[in-house]
Amino acid sequence: MFEPLSETAIIEVVNVLKYNSDGIIPAISQQHDTGEVLMMAWMNKQSIEETLRTGRVCYWSRSRGKLWRKGESSGQVQTLRDFRWDCDADTILMQVHQDGVACHTGRRNCFFLAARDDAIQEIADVEIDPEELYG
Amino acid sequence: MFEPLSETAIIEVVNVLKYNSDGIIPAISQQHDTGEVLMMAWMNKQSIEETLRTGRVCYWSRSRGKLWRKGESSGQVQTLRDFRWDCDADTILMQVHQDGVACHTGRRNCFFLAARDDAIQEIADVEIDPEELYG
Repeated sequence: MFEPLSETAIIEVVNVLKYNSDGIIPAISQQHDTGEVLMMAWMNKQSIEETLRTGRVCYWSRSRGKLWRKGESSGQVQTLRDFRWDCDADTILMQVHQDGVACHTGRRNCFFLAARDDAIQEIADVEIDPEELYG
Repeated sequence: MFEPLSETAIIEVVNVLKYNSDGIIPAISQQHDTGEVLMMAWMNKQSIEETLRTGRVCYWSRSRGKLWRKGESSGQVQTLRDFRWDCDADTILMQVHQDGVACHTGRRNCFFLAARDDAIQEIADVEIDPEELYG
């Protein structure tokens, strides 16, 4: 399990990361035990602070312009297991436990489109009806 | 192995993807057989076309403002195995075979910094001296 950080360490992490001109940084989430890449979204300082404080993943929604506590509408929560970043400090990689499905289409992960057999193919099935997730 | 696409299919893929205001899209690469997330970089239309045409991963270098054929200086080539993208068509996930190391620091992957035990830790060792990679 992820040990929530002290406020001192949270500030240290937030300050070492590099944000783009909109003040956000891309964040990849990966299922901790299978290596499945679930999704890529964006975080700002506030969402990183909340994630490191609570151990529950919170993104920044660019479209809605507000904090996006993953699962707050759908119940499909991401629990943090490890918080990593890259050599340039401009991309985050989170090891998480994903409850249910990560994708708003009801698929386990968002990367279900692929170029195969010289065509665009859907490579994953819907596991939960989005109607059920979002009502 | 990845079957290079026809020019028609390449155009179809390039046109279905969504680029930011700089004409680029984030691209994650993942080692195909272990699930290890290697790096995140950016691609533009031209680099995607070349990647799908040759099966060898080519990014767009934002800092150098030119095509970045991964491994052209270091020899650490990425061979494409599967080209995927997400529900919003604004992030690419490539399954690749990474020769040697992905990171310019000489580590296998770029995500070697982590918030653990209330501190920032390096969680991977240098496998190849960068001097050896870049001379």
